Amino acid sequence: MSAPSKLKARQPRGFVDRGPADVAATERMLSVIRESFSLYGFDPVETPLIEYTDALGKFLPDQDRPNEGVFSFQDDDEQWLSLRYDLTAPLARYVAENFDALPKPYRSYRAGYVFRNEKPGPGRFRQFMQFDADIVGSGTVAADAEICMLAADTMEALGIKRGDYVVKVNNRKVLDGVMEAIGLGGDENAGRRLTVLRAIDKFDKVGIEGVRELLGNGRMDQSGDFTKGAGLSAYQSDPILRLLNSSSDTAAALDVIKEVAGNSPITEQGFQELDVIARMVIAAGYSDQIIVDPSVVRGLEYYTGPVYEVELTFEVPNEQGQIVRFGSVAGGGRYDGLVGRFRPEAVPATGFSIGVSRLYSALKAVKSPIVDTKAELPLVVVTAMDNKSPEFMPAYQAFVSQLRQARDEKGKPLLRADLYLGSSGFNAQMKYADRRGAVCAVIQGSSEREAGTVVIKDLILGAELAAAGREVKDSAEHKERQAQAQFAVSASELVEGVKRVIGRHARA
Amino acid sequence: MSAPSKLKARQPRGFVDRGPADVAATERMLSVIRESFSLYGFDPVETPLIEYTDALGKFLPDQDRPNEGVFSFQDDDEQWLSLRYDLTAPLARYVAENFDALPKPYRSYRAGYVFRNEKPGPGRFRQFMQFDADIVGSGTVAADAEICMLAADTMEALGIKRGDYVVKVNNRKVLDGVMEAIGLGGDENAGRRLTVLRAIDKFDKVGIEGVRELLGNGRMDQSGDFTKGAGLSAYQSDPILRLLNSSSDTAAALDVIKEVAGNSPITEQGFQELDVIARMVIAAGYSDQIIVDPSVVRGLEYYTGPVYEVELTFEVPNEQGQIVRFGSVAGGGRYDGLVGRFRPEAVPATGFSIGVSRLYSALKAVKSPIVDTKAELPLVVVTAMDNKSPEFMPAYQAFVSQLRQARDEKGKPLLRADLYLGSSGFNAQMKYADRRGAVCAVIQGSSEREAGTVVIKDLILGAELAAAGREVKDSAEHKERQAQAQFAVSASELVEGVKRVIGRHARA
Repeated sequence: MSAPSKLKARQPRGFVDRGPADVAATERMLSVIRESFSLYGFDPVETPLIEYTDALGKFLPDQDRPNEGVFSFQDDDEQWLSLRYDLTAPLARYVAENFDALPKPYRSYRAGYVFRNEKPGPGRFRQFMQFDADIVGSGTVAADAEICMLAADTMEALGIKRGDYVVKVNNRKVLDGVMEAIGLGGDENAGRRLTVLRAIDKFDKVGIEGVRELLGNGRMDQSGDFTKGAGLSAYQSDPILRLLNSSSDTAAALDVIKEVAGNSPITEQGFQELDVIARMVIAAGYSDQIIVDPSVVRGLEYYTGPVYEVELTFEVPNEQGQIVRFGSVAGGGRYDGLVGRFRPEAVPATGFSIGVSRLYSALKAVKSPIVDTKAELPLVVVTAMDNKSPEFMPAYQAFVSQLRQARDEKGKPLLRADLYLGSSGFNAQMKYADRRGAVCAVIQGSSEREAGTVVIKDLILGAELAAAGREVKDSAEHKERQAQAQFAVSASELVEGVKRVIGRHARA
Repeated sequence: MSAPSKLKARQPRGFVDRGPADVAATERMLSVIRESFSLYGFDPVETPLIEYTDALGKFLPDQDRPNEGVFSFQDDDEQWLSLRYDLTAPLARYVAENFDALPKPYRSYRAGYVFRNEKPGPGRFRQFMQFDADIVGSGTVAADAEICMLAADTMEALGIKRGDYVVKVNNRKVLDGVMEAIGLGGDENAGRRLTVLRAIDKFDKVGIEGVRELLGNGRMDQSGDFTKGAGLSAYQSDPILRLLNSSSDTAAALDVIKEVAGNSPITEQGFQELDVIARMVIAAGYSDQIIVDPSVVRGLEYYTGPVYEVELTFEVPNEQGQIVRFGSVAGGGRYDGLVGRFRPEAVPATGFSIGVSRLYSALKAVKSPIVDTKAELPLVVVTAMDNKSPEFMPAYQAFVSQLRQARDEKGKPLLRADLYLGSSGFNAQMKYADRRGAVCAVIQGSSEREAGTVVIKDLILGAELAAAGREVKDSAEHKERQAQAQFAVSASELVEGVKRVIGRHARA
């Protein structure tokens, strides 16, 4: 008979586990963002991961089939439920449901996982974390300006230097007006408008000539793949291309928007709003960090006015090894219609969302101290020399217990302590201590037990000494250091002895 | 034509939103648990919320139909996915998948939401948070003892006093052996064993006589509902009832287990393990907090050895207004078979799980400082007197910006600052500041603007003065305090003026 077949331990594609360094660094990152949002007077709120499908609505970008992009399932009462795909749609439901109880304008922040049921790819996951801030119940573009400043301040709080990031602002009305003026208005042109938006969204990758082709008959890329174009005439494409080409600075961008707006009252309104935002940004001293850029599109369909994107401008190698700008880590915009789906009155709102995983990669790239994994307390491993005899375990347990209670003069814990609980012998236990990155190991065998002592082994110093050359090893100094690297103390002085080793390796 | 009907803002049953106080307090609670687990040498890990259904297995208690209790849906490739129902099954998958890369024994902790697709009730949700610690790869009961001590230390770190909680330990083998000895062994008796377990689980509610009835022919409760019993003879019930009756202290419990074990080598093994745990607990000085109690059952099916439960012993009113012990907030046990489902070798493991929401209610009940919501920074609201004229907004924005940069001598932020961004007039703005719990409001109208000043209104002092009686209001002292409650400073001294108000109301 063959052995029964075992289940394979595996994960669905697009989902990942995160180890200790990632979890600890993300935790620190979230707490910096939390403080930054809190200083702006935003209050936390948390909504569940599951909502009624109809409450979330269908606003995902690039989804041609209904329900695509969302994980959905039926409840016992046949109603459809979905995992949230962002934190904005659930906020709209929350505000609508608690409208009278909330102060308005209502400033709130939220962090949490969202889900997209789409094809995963490199750096593209089906579960990822977002951190959002929103102001609901404010129709003034001062709220949009405030969100942009919050985004800028948050980048700096996270250790991203001024000049390494930029907050780009555009307005949906600018392009909506232009599209209407060139004959792409109305429901019947929704598909063509989407093709135009996708073409603009590729500006960074394909440049102005690439966009010109995508707006016209289509474009063949280097691999020979052909993308069908929007079929616009040169006359229709012209204002769009002019907008894209203007994106060098705020003043130039505003000039071109004003010019293009000649044909459309909607574009003119978009211009006015951007102009006010630009003035506020200048007055508050943020004009280096926050700029008007008409190439910003944002994929989600619910935006109705200003849209913004936080882009990191430093360069990193991409998946193909090319050096590229890091790119977008956060974005958002005004969504005046979303809460109103549930309410009799209009409820204007604006907000932005940080892509936490992408931002985490960015912080690692700029070596921000916030994601420095060495900030953990040092680990001490108590070995269990006589782990085959249960009667000795209580003494080892008493050692870890004392170590865990060690505090510095301010009452803060000094170290983490681990008792080896496996069944292997001494060598394997020392390997375990190494593998866990322990600073020192505590050892009590039968001779130490009789003498009432413990041996403390400094694993960092030990490794240094082991790596030294032959002539060094014969020196008197080396022998003295060896005595420091492994020494015995009375069992009652265990904590003092361990403190001595930790003190040696404390970082300045 | 009638107006188009609006969507109703509502949540699926069993799911809840959490407001600012809950979110902030939970955050503090999680960080205390994290530190406690970390001091024991546990490392964080995070697994996704979605797993392959077969990887999770079916171990939920009280589920008569397959798949009941779990939210499941099919992936594009037809494979079944599920939302995790606990944090133990995903850990088993994670360890099996990364077996060679992990140090063993592997100590890890995890916090996160889990989902149960069951009928929600009072205090029973379909999404709730757990915080787990596990030791995988250790077969010694020293690991179980360590988990129990960790549980005890964590309760005290959270502000639950010794005597207000107890960690109760039992062993699945004790009851398994007894059930075999009374003829309830084998697959054909699985249903009856479950009935027996459910009867024991009701010991707290129905007492020893109630359990006797539930083990026998059945029991009629006060409302007249009849629960069918397990149909055991008095002779079969006897050892079970003796075990339950023994649960006053560790020594008494061990005596009865030893006695009952006369009929069963499995029970004898369970006794031996509990005896070793009890010795370790005494040696480590935890014998007041950790006791052996044979009435502990634990619902999940994957436990194979020691099981434990953290019970809060102080009394609170229940949903019916009766005074009852708060009850269980955490529990766990040994699950030696779970990782082995995926691996060729046996992988023993033990761990426990804290029910975060229940524990949060408990911390509120004992008024633990950890869930004290007043630990937030004070809030300052800058009003926008001229919010109809966009040209004045930049100046208001500069005020909040300065306030947000205010730091104490250690470089820590002093306050949170909010700019009113709604369209309402002055009175509504002052109401907004009150509603948000602001300490003071900053006001600049046209006359202040001309004079280059701002008015700072102390809302706490103001409320006190407004509540004073008539004779007090005529006093000179009252007038002096009124001058303190609302005063003008030069706009350049805004931050100093606000600091003065905050200083008045700083808690000792």
